[in-house]
Amino acid sequence: MNLLESTIRKITGQDDAARKRARARLEQLIMPHWALGRLMDLAEDLAGITGSLNPPVKRKTIVTMAGDHGVVAEGVSAYPQEVTPQMVHGIVAGGAGVNALSRQAGASVVVVDMGVAGDLSELAAAGKIISRRIAAGTGNMARGAAMSREEAIRALEAGIDIACELGSNVDVFGTGDMGIGNTTPSSAIVSVLSGSPVADVTGRGTGVNDDQLEQKIRIIEKCIAVNQPDKNDGLDVLAKVGGFEIGGIAGLILGAASLKKPVVVDGFISTAGALIAHSIAPASADYMIAAHRSVEKGHRIALELLGKKPMIDLDLRLGEGTGAALVMNFVEAAVRILTEVATFEEASVSQADK
Amino acid sequence: MNLLESTIRKITGQDDAARKRARARLEQLIMPHWALGRLMDLAEDLAGITGSLNPPVKRKTIVTMAGDHGVVAEGVSAYPQEVTPQMVHGIVAGGAGVNALSRQAGASVVVVDMGVAGDLSELAAAGKIISRRIAAGTGNMARGAAMSREEAIRALEAGIDIACELGSNVDVFGTGDMGIGNTTPSSAIVSVLSGSPVADVTGRGTGVNDDQLEQKIRIIEKCIAVNQPDKNDGLDVLAKVGGFEIGGIAGLILGAASLKKPVVVDGFISTAGALIAHSIAPASADYMIAAHRSVEKGHRIALELLGKKPMIDLDLRLGEGTGAALVMNFVEAAVRILTEVATFEEASVSQADK
Repeated sequence: MNLLESTIRKITGQDDAARKRARARLEQLIMPHWALGRLMDLAEDLAGITGSLNPPVKRKTIVTMAGDHGVVAEGVSAYPQEVTPQMVHGIVAGGAGVNALSRQAGASVVVVDMGVAGDLSELAAAGKIISRRIAAGTGNMARGAAMSREEAIRALEAGIDIACELGSNVDVFGTGDMGIGNTTPSSAIVSVLSGSPVADVTGRGTGVNDDQLEQKIRIIEKCIAVNQPDKNDGLDVLAKVGGFEIGGIAGLILGAASLKKPVVVDGFISTAGALIAHSIAPASADYMIAAHRSVEKGHRIALELLGKKPMIDLDLRLGEGTGAALVMNFVEAAVRILTEVATFEEASVSQADK
Repeated sequence: MNLLESTIRKITGQDDAARKRARARLEQLIMPHWALGRLMDLAEDLAGITGSLNPPVKRKTIVTMAGDHGVVAEGVSAYPQEVTPQMVHGIVAGGAGVNALSRQAGASVVVVDMGVAGDLSELAAAGKIISRRIAAGTGNMARGAAMSREEAIRALEAGIDIACELGSNVDVFGTGDMGIGNTTPSSAIVSVLSGSPVADVTGRGTGVNDDQLEQKIRIIEKCIAVNQPDKNDGLDVLAKVGGFEIGGIAGLILGAASLKKPVVVDGFISTAGALIAHSIAPASADYMIAAHRSVEKGHRIALELLGKKPMIDLDLRLGEGTGAALVMNFVEAAVRILTEVATFEEASVSQADK
């Protein structure tokens, strides 16, 4: 049995008994019933995920998976492909959006080269990034599969490995992505798995104009028509119309779920990865926290398919893990509500008239 | 000239030059244009508020204003009035929602007795709360004014004083409230100032049932009919259908605006206070950051009247300053985006194809 299969077998749903105990306490806190709303839902989830009434959440890490996409040859992005390795350098230097927001949230950032079309070997040799590169970018999926099935498994297993390796020092994972052109495979994945028309799940990515958007939609339709991914087989969808970093994200989520650790899923690309994880191991969704609703058009449909409601909606469309970093604050806040707020009995506060 | 008048004169709009310089930098950061959305809007605001491209936001304080309401005699709340002083004790003990969320955000909490119907003199003598009490709760506004015009001025000036006294050690203020029954005056204020029917701006508060909600609406209609507040005179509205803690919140906002410091406005009750501040000194709105959209029905209309879009929407309905505490994280995040993210030029990252 390979790592992917053994990981899938380890993934079971949340701990219902811990959820119930958490709910019982939350309902007795000195406030009107459930007056902190979705933070209390999150607290209950965290108890169910970790099996604890004091869920550990101190050590937070955003894992930003980087990869390139052969389909950019079709002109689907406003930015040149060289930006992917440049931005990896930017993150390593600490000057990207995800760095600033992770510092605010007290999270560390780990960058993984899943398959960037550029030489990052110096960064890897210096231990500044993790290298799990599969190839120098995916194949052009407008003309064939983005990757082989075997490569898709390798991408997933890389993510699982990283979750397991980091896991002894991480309480909460966050996902992030970096890869010019990666809204294209993400829209393709969401279209295939949701059955929605491509035009309904395709947005402007980093900022294409109207004509380019039309072209992008036609390209994605072509990618799907050429490859005919099987919507009932997440691995097939990943291989045919996915990306290395999307596979890495899916694997990271599967790994986190197998470790019973919460994973904050960033924006559109991360949610495409989450959909792959969910397709492969449905119970993994129990461990996902949807960070934010992206400006990217398909994100709403992707989140609905996953059954998740995002915590924030701030017109973000950067990726990198920025939304996940912001929501780390709320993960910590939710635990503090569960562990630091007194009950009516503890505080001798009068309850509501019945 | 009294303190209120001199404070109003000091309140001018944001620093447009600082806003423009902030925008210019934000537009050059290594990301697609404005890809961090509303956090970048907030960063621009903070530059305009403070006149700085490195807005100081480290020292954060939530000021929770407490007061009681004579109108509870009409049966408008699910909780007995004794809960107000009990919850003040709960906050001082560190076990309330606002304490837990403030600790997460690195904010301190200051409680002010603006007029609680209970003896808090021991807490005040011990320096654990600030006492600016005007009376042991407002009058029953279903039968006459909640307070005199002179008391309304005193409530506002107490808030201004507190902002000025704390101001040398506070970069960002947050507002909070504690007062059984205080959604009733808040709905009355929003109804009067917005011209909306009472039924459109009145919710369940801490949790009244359907019959009690109907009764609450009739009581608020009666309060307005009995008092005939002048919608063009915020001070008159505060005196006739307001509350001591609502006046304190309005004063705190005016004080913060006069100091050119940002003030994060919590939920429904705080927004009622913000509307009073805005009515008295319209430019004070430039210094307000709307924290969240409350479950309380009238909050949407109140925010629209103020021209503010809240940062989060998490089904909160607790008050105390809990939403303001959560959003302190985003205030800090916004500043970090402005000050810590590299520009394309600094990081040698290629820009979008034009």
